[in-house]
Amino acid sequence: MHLANVIGRASGTLKDPPMTGIKLLVVQPVDGAGNETGPSEIVTDAVGAGIGDTVLVATGSAARQPAAMRGVATDASAIMIVDDVAIQD
Amino acid sequence: MHLANVIGRASGTLKDPPMTGIKLLVVQPVDGAGNETGPSEIVTDAVGAGIGDTVLVATGSAARQPAAMRGVATDASAIMIVDDVAIQD
Amino acid sequence: MHLANVIGRASGTLKDPPMTGIKLLVVQPVDGAGNETGPSEIVTDAVGAGIGDTVLVATGSAARQPAAMRGVATDASAIMIVDDVAIQD
Amino acid sequence: MHLANVIGRASGTLKDPPMTGIKLLVVQPVDGAGNETGPSEIVTDAVGAGIGDTVLVATGSAARQPAAMRGVATDASAIMIVDDVAIQD
Amino acid sequence: MHLANVIGRASGTLKDPPMTGIKLLVVQPVDGAGNETGPSEIVTDAVGAGIGDTVLVATGSAARQPAAMRGVATDASAIMIVDDVAIQD
Repeated sequence: MHLANVIGRASGTLKDPPMTGIKLLVVQPVDGAGNETGPSEIVTDAVGAGIGDTVLVATGSAARQPAAMRGVATDASAIMIVDDVAIQD
Repeated sequence: MHLANVIGRASGTLKDPPMTGIKLLVVQPVDGAGNETGPSEIVTDAVGAGIGDTVLVATGSAARQPAAMRGVATDASAIMIVDDVAIQD
Repeated sequence: MHLANVIGRASGTLKDPPMTGIKLLVVQPVDGAGNETGPSEIVTDAVGAGIGDTVLVATGSAARQPAAMRGVATDASAIMIVDDVAIQD
Repeated sequence: MHLANVIGRASGTLKDPPMTGIKLLVVQPVDGAGNETGPSEIVTDAVGAGIGDTVLVATGSAARQPAAMRGVATDASAIMIVDDVAIQD
Repeated sequence: MHLANVIGRASGTLKDPPMTGIKLLVVQPVDGAGNETGPSEIVTDAVGAGIGDTVLVATGSAARQPAAMRGVATDASAIMIVDDVAIQD
């Protein structure tokens, strides 16, 4: 899994039906120290995250483990709002 | 998931039978700001997308969640035509 | 999914038993314009492809969707011989 | 799978419910010789690892094979504390 | 799938129980021509491979298709000892 900062929202009208009502977040992946690690990506929101939050992103079939994501064609979900990352020097 | 611009079509006669009748799109992956992020790729179309559309691509087993993709040997599907991406500065 | 050019064959005697009788192709991944995108890889052949063919490669669990690949320990299969790739400028 | 050094912990209050009580490790991926191979990542802990340990990380659906991870939305778990890596020159 | 040269062994005492008795190989991924393609990685051994062998590595859920790997938290297994790779110039 990786950390990511929520930086925006994405939406569309034409979509696979189970995606209806699911919030899509634009997130910037970061490492444990907050450095950007790659391009922004789109994730489904399983925890009520908003812009400015740091979230934990689960990818692959893990993205569909949250109850609200069963049957949704998602490969990446925000599954936690991260409060604390403590790295030991 | 990632955003991608539809730039073409691909086709072939010899294929795994469940792929018959499935439209294949050539797409250019982009980030939330529209910058290209890697080489073009091939995705199955679950939403009736066409050239010029920006789509949301779901990869892995998520690509087979849409009803039309069950049993199809796809690892990437366009599952939404994206109308709006709003990134907060 | 991605396109790839078939450039060779691989074989071995000691293998997981369901792999017996499955043809292994060495392929060079390419983008929609035919440019190489990474190192060569090994894929199982679900469509009777040969050297010189351009194939569509499905990865992950998608590689085991073709009937002949059920139970085979493959994570990448050639599932179509591609005849045409049309990119709009 | 890959090796990784445990360098920290991550936590949050708002999360997918099955993640409750699961310890999250910040780990630095390394190769067999101990060289860093990419950015730090977050993994669920299936073996009681702590800072300073080198762990074996399983990704994708493998991360949910340990009994304690069933139903948890994780795509990466520490599944062994590695005592010895012997590379032959 | 990709080819890899077996270069070592890894072991540990504390592990997810189904991993008990499973041999872990340190392997160096290579392309069809034998060039290294990335950092060394750890794979479970499904074919009795040893140092010096070139193996075919299956990743993701494919790694758990061999009978001996069911329920094992592995995302990469050596599933063939490769005897021959023939690339056509």
